[in-house]
Amino acid sequence: MTRLSQKDVLRADQFSREELELILATATAYEQALAVGEPLHDLRGRILSTLFFEPSTRTRLSFEAAMLRLGGGVLSVAEAKSSSAAKGESLEDTIRTVEGYADVIVLRHPEVGAAARAAAATEKPVLNAGDGAGEHPTQALLDLFTIRKERTRIEGLTVALEGDLRHGRTVHSLARLLALYDVRLILVSPEELRMPPDVLERIAASGVEVVESTDLRSAIPQADVLYMTRIQRERFATPSEYERLKDSYVLTREMLAAGDSSLLVLHPLPRVNEIAADVDDFQGAAYFRQAANGVPVRMALLALVCGIPRATTASP
Amino acid sequence: MTRLSQKDVLRADQFSREELELILATATAYEQALAVGEPLHDLRGRILSTLFFEPSTRTRLSFEAAMLRLGGGVLSVAEAKSSSAAKGESLEDTIRTVEGYADVIVLRHPEVGAAARAAAATEKPVLNAGDGAGEHPTQALLDLFTIRKERTRIEGLTVALEGDLRHGRTVHSLARLLALYDVRLILVSPEELRMPPDVLERIAASGVEVVESTDLRSAIPQADVLYMTRIQRERFATPSEYERLKDSYVLTREMLAAGDSSLLVLHPLPRVNEIAADVDDFQGAAYFRQAANGVPVRMALLALVCGIPRATTASP
Amino acid sequence: MTRLSQKDVLRADQFSREELELILATATAYEQALAVGEPLHDLRGRILSTLFFEPSTRTRLSFEAAMLRLGGGVLSVAEAKSSSAAKGESLEDTIRTVEGYADVIVLRHPEVGAAARAAAATEKPVLNAGDGAGEHPTQALLDLFTIRKERTRIEGLTVALEGDLRHGRTVHSLARLLALYDVRLILVSPEELRMPPDVLERIAASGVEVVESTDLRSAIPQADVLYMTRIQRERFATPSEYERLKDSYVLTREMLAAGDSSLLVLHPLPRVNEIAADVDDFQGAAYFRQAANGVPVRMALLALVCGIPRATTASP
Repeated sequence: MTRLSQKDVLRADQFSREELELILATATAYEQALAVGEPLHDLRGRILSTLFFEPSTRTRLSFEAAMLRLGGGVLSVAEAKSSSAAKGESLEDTIRTVEGYADVIVLRHPEVGAAARAAAATEKPVLNAGDGAGEHPTQALLDLFTIRKERTRIEGLTVALEGDLRHGRTVHSLARLLALYDVRLILVSPEELRMPPDVLERIAASGVEVVESTDLRSAIPQADVLYMTRIQRERFATPSEYERLKDSYVLTREMLAAGDSSLLVLHPLPRVNEIAADVDDFQGAAYFRQAANGVPVRMALLALVCGIPRATTASP
Repeated sequence: MTRLSQKDVLRADQFSREELELILATATAYEQALAVGEPLHDLRGRILSTLFFEPSTRTRLSFEAAMLRLGGGVLSVAEAKSSSAAKGESLEDTIRTVEGYADVIVLRHPEVGAAARAAAATEKPVLNAGDGAGEHPTQALLDLFTIRKERTRIEGLTVALEGDLRHGRTVHSLARLLALYDVRLILVSPEELRMPPDVLERIAASGVEVVESTDLRSAIPQADVLYMTRIQRERFATPSEYERLKDSYVLTREMLAAGDSSLLVLHPLPRVNEIAADVDDFQGAAYFRQAANGVPVRMALLALVCGIPRATTASP
Repeated sequence: MTRLSQKDVLRADQFSREELELILATATAYEQALAVGEPLHDLRGRILSTLFFEPSTRTRLSFEAAMLRLGGGVLSVAEAKSSSAAKGESLEDTIRTVEGYADVIVLRHPEVGAAARAAAATEKPVLNAGDGAGEHPTQALLDLFTIRKERTRIEGLTVALEGDLRHGRTVHSLARLLALYDVRLILVSPEELRMPPDVLERIAASGVEVVESTDLRSAIPQADVLYMTRIQRERFATPSEYERLKDSYVLTREMLAAGDSSLLVLHPLPRVNEIAADVDDFQGAAYFRQAANGVPVRMALLALVCGIPRATTASP
């Protein structure tokens, strides 16, 4: 039995600081086991079902890889909306059926709150892999894991979150998590795409210092971590607004020269053109390492909700 | 070696009473092994290929879960019609290719008789997971398993089959199976959707008592088991016929009050609106338990056709 | 460590004669292990990701079967173009992400050179499962394996390649491989669909004797091996050209009577109507055995690029 045994993972801010530390420590333990090629059987005989009502190669594959690395089996539904749902079945009925086949369910769904509805329909653990514009908590956890691994700590860092802060569920989840730590946040976005008030309030309530800005270039020299997200031309109010701002929303190697050489650049991927190719070999450009961290972090979550302890310490 | 070793599973009525008992006993043995968390390796090193020319999350996942629970591997083709078939390959050629990759093949196909054609093309066991309006024998087997488990016996029961009895391959297969037992059948459907003559003749030939009815409400007090199926508005001859009958084809909690408190309510799922949500917490509403029974029953079938015995007794 | 450890498989002609012999010997060793039911764990704990940007049941399933037979796990992406690529992600970014989840990547992609681009983006081994009209090297390897197994040798054989030699990546790859051996080639195609000059030059440079012909019927008596491929009506310059030639491009049992009784007939499948059904029970009609050989050959490739030796001898 573990602290998170049989629990659902629905929102980034459901975790206490102690639970976060347990997850991160477990992920680190699994990462080390993978690095030395230790054979793992922690979830042998268990079955994960991925139910994706929206396509997502990255999230689906990293969950499935995590389950396989732990010795478990996978039932994969990459196109859930083309099957039972097409016959008019409710999400709840689908979940009550799949709980008969699997020990853990990972759900991606286009509707906000879908994961919570799924969790209410079953006793089995449900992991939210994205619910519309809602949350994507396992992405936020791997982001946090990546920041700590790359920068050795989270406390005391200045983190700039950049891009479409209004619609990006990834930055909503990450901001809520970072609010548990002693950090400083710079929120960089066009006026139209500012962070929603409820997230801002939550951050403010935690005592974290927040600065909002529309200018990426001026944020770089202050940041220890720059978290980029995808921003789409059509999100701007007018074409002229886009023309005015677009240059500050495409990160180039030249812009990085103004920052610290140890600046950490993250992105949840896929990127389209918001990070120039010449940034890729910048030392702190860690977005592909970040993606790879999805495996140990999701291994930790799967093992913990299945009641399998790994990390022997969970000291904060 | 087992009695069913290397056999195909194509029709519900292919089984002798003794073979049925072997399947049910094996399913019970696997269910108990799962319940106590016994590690199972019966099909380690074997490969199942699921070939679905029509989508079906439920049937595909429960077969794949069954194979994984037995320690085997799965080659999953959720959208078979979009690949080789799209290039004009015949079903027979597809099967003769897949037999080179897998030890067992599970096929769903829109054409009646497709599973029999597939079985004729290969020496490997083929399991029919639904062939158009034809048969769905593994569903009928899990229905039978569920009835015996929930009601402790099959002999002596009165079973009401309700809904679209004309087009429903599930009820065709189940009726043929029940005809092997000493049961009484009530067939409830609109006039236009009566059970086809060939199934009726088969039942009559077995000596089982059959009553046909258009009224669900009057069938409930007589039934030990009520097997609901999906009925679609457009199946009725006229809109007025639908309006006249629709209320008796939507099961509500209120209607159940007229029946025995131990009435067992089954449905092959997915349901749309033929069972009201307030029925779900009725004690005998077993449709989700029924779906879950797909795993041990399909474990039994996979193990038996692969020649792996599990149940030590097959006494009827 | 093996000679091919961590290598990519991109083109048929990348292999030395010695490497080819190692692959064939390893495939033979795995085939024998499978035949006696030897439990294999050579790739236990390893993960293969199949990334198919074009559908292909045959190639995808035989790679996945090979991985499962070796005790490894599979991340399957049957419809890669409908996920991250749809959001505008580059192939290179997709690969740099998937390398975080898997130990080996198998790629099918519609663009010539895609596999080489993928291989350049990652340190992990990339296996080309077809890149547009480019190459399909693992198919050529299984073809070579099949010829040697069925005819006991490759040296000294006369091999007729027939069909659409202009567009068929399979015959391009196979011709380049055969050029490493002392064989004689007959290239049978309509004038419009002749083998491309670069492949002809490569064969000529190797010293192999080549004859080009438009007539299948006259090639049969001279051939030890007849390798058929799909030829489409719309590939002909004019309808009258098609009408004139079509009969010589549909292989019938009657045509085989003119050949040697030990003639070996191959086809990469799927076939549409270029081989009549009555050819199927001709002793040398080996196309389904050829398809099944995809498993041991791909087992050999997967094991070798993962650095796992199997065959103890690689003598040519």
